[in-house]
Amino acid sequence: MTKNTKVNAAILIIGNEILSGRTQDTNTTTIALWLNSIGVKVQEVRVIPDIEDIIIETVNHLRKVDDYVFTTGGIGPTHDDITAQSISKAFNLNYEIHKEAFKILEAYYKPGEFNEGRQKMVWMPENANLILNPTSGAPGFNVKNVFCLPGVPSILKSMLGGLKNKIVGGDPILSHTISLRTVESEIAKSLTDVQNNNKDIEIGSYPFFQAGKLGVSIVIRSEKKSKIDECSNQILNFINKMKIEVVDR
Amino acid sequence: MTKNTKVNAAILIIGNEILSGRTQDTNTTTIALWLNSIGVKVQEVRVIPDIEDIIIETVNHLRKVDDYVFTTGGIGPTHDDITAQSISKAFNLNYEIHKEAFKILEAYYKPGEFNEGRQKMVWMPENANLILNPTSGAPGFNVKNVFCLPGVPSILKSMLGGLKNKIVGGDPILSHTISLRTVESEIAKSLTDVQNNNKDIEIGSYPFFQAGKLGVSIVIRSEKKSKIDECSNQILNFINKMKIEVVDR
Repeated sequence: MTKNTKVNAAILIIGNEILSGRTQDTNTTTIALWLNSIGVKVQEVRVIPDIEDIIIETVNHLRKVDDYVFTTGGIGPTHDDITAQSISKAFNLNYEIHKEAFKILEAYYKPGEFNEGRQKMVWMPENANLILNPTSGAPGFNVKNVFCLPGVPSILKSMLGGLKNKIVGGDPILSHTISLRTVESEIAKSLTDVQNNNKDIEIGSYPFFQAGKLGVSIVIRSEKKSKIDECSNQILNFINKMKIEVVDR
Repeated sequence: MTKNTKVNAAILIIGNEILSGRTQDTNTTTIALWLNSIGVKVQEVRVIPDIEDIIIETVNHLRKVDDYVFTTGGIGPTHDDITAQSISKAFNLNYEIHKEAFKILEAYYKPGEFNEGRQKMVWMPENANLILNPTSGAPGFNVKNVFCLPGVPSILKSMLGGLKNKIVGGDPILSHTISLRTVESEIAKSLTDVQNNNKDIEIGSYPFFQAGKLGVSIVIRSEKKSKIDECSNQILNFINKMKIEVVDR
């Protein structure tokens, strides 16, 4: 594996419910696949509790080492939603009512329904940029390279499209999978040789069970299609010699 | 939220396939639920790529700040499986053939099948303690407070039972959920009051959709059942006054 020198991101999942095992995180997969498609590689994911000091410290670390940081969770109306407040402190910004967000939610709710709880959702770091929410009104926001999204997967998903022109990625990261009817130990040595011959390509090997049979998926990832093709040919070459069945390629 | 002062753990998911979004991690939930049941609270989860320096640095950080560290992934036979080697370096230990693991796999495979690829799986940090694998033979291992498990969820699950007497937990972490037919903003203020009156209890609020209807689950977590009951009563008290429907408790 080579360390990626292109555009990197970190995902920061904020929420006790993930750490306790109560809730299965799926936002990582959603964000990672979307970022790949616009040429951004996820370098690290962290899941942390709803504790202000930890959020501040983690955000301040990640925003310096990665090009982008995406947080999920903690921007709702209840006491355990402390992301906006923590991001304000991380950047030494005032935590205040965001006028544009206020207007959006005032118009979104029926008269009288924009109550104190809902008004909490327009408190943000000063001058934050809004990320519009086509599903449930309350916007996310970004300060510099830190993008704060909600935890509810369907809402988060609906907001990614609106982010596209705020993120400058590199070349899209392409991947090609070759699925084989074999076990990892059979191909380990030959695959190591291919990896050593292609040090700038990421080659992963993942065993699978399917319809009661064992198999291995080899995943080749790179920004360059020509390199993937070359690497793929080298793999198929030894696979053919070893008379291993190719299930899918 | 109060920072837990009891027995803590970190989970370290090692694998490019999670960061790329190709594979949905489920091991965090499995490990977290199991740890809760033996009184260990997960304080942090990190997902990192198959890069030796990053594994070493992250393990050396987490093993100092948490009581236990559980790694998943990277202990198979292929070139991208570099966990055992990285853990050896993290602890400044030799990376060598583990005699007991060798015997186990020699007996596990048919004569002639314990090939070079499979033999890679018995290379471990010197004097590592084995974690037996009832599913597919190849053991995991621990060095001090760092426990290394495989990435395949079914295999990992089958190995947790064998770990129980190696982990010393605190009191089991209990939780109680109250599900309500309401929206978060309606109860936000009253729930904040309850949290402020019970600072040592973790109270989470999670919106849900079910059969086309919106609801909120309030999750109360503590090691003390009496505290959960007290907190639960305070919540039900304001819920009754507000005439909000309790869906489940």
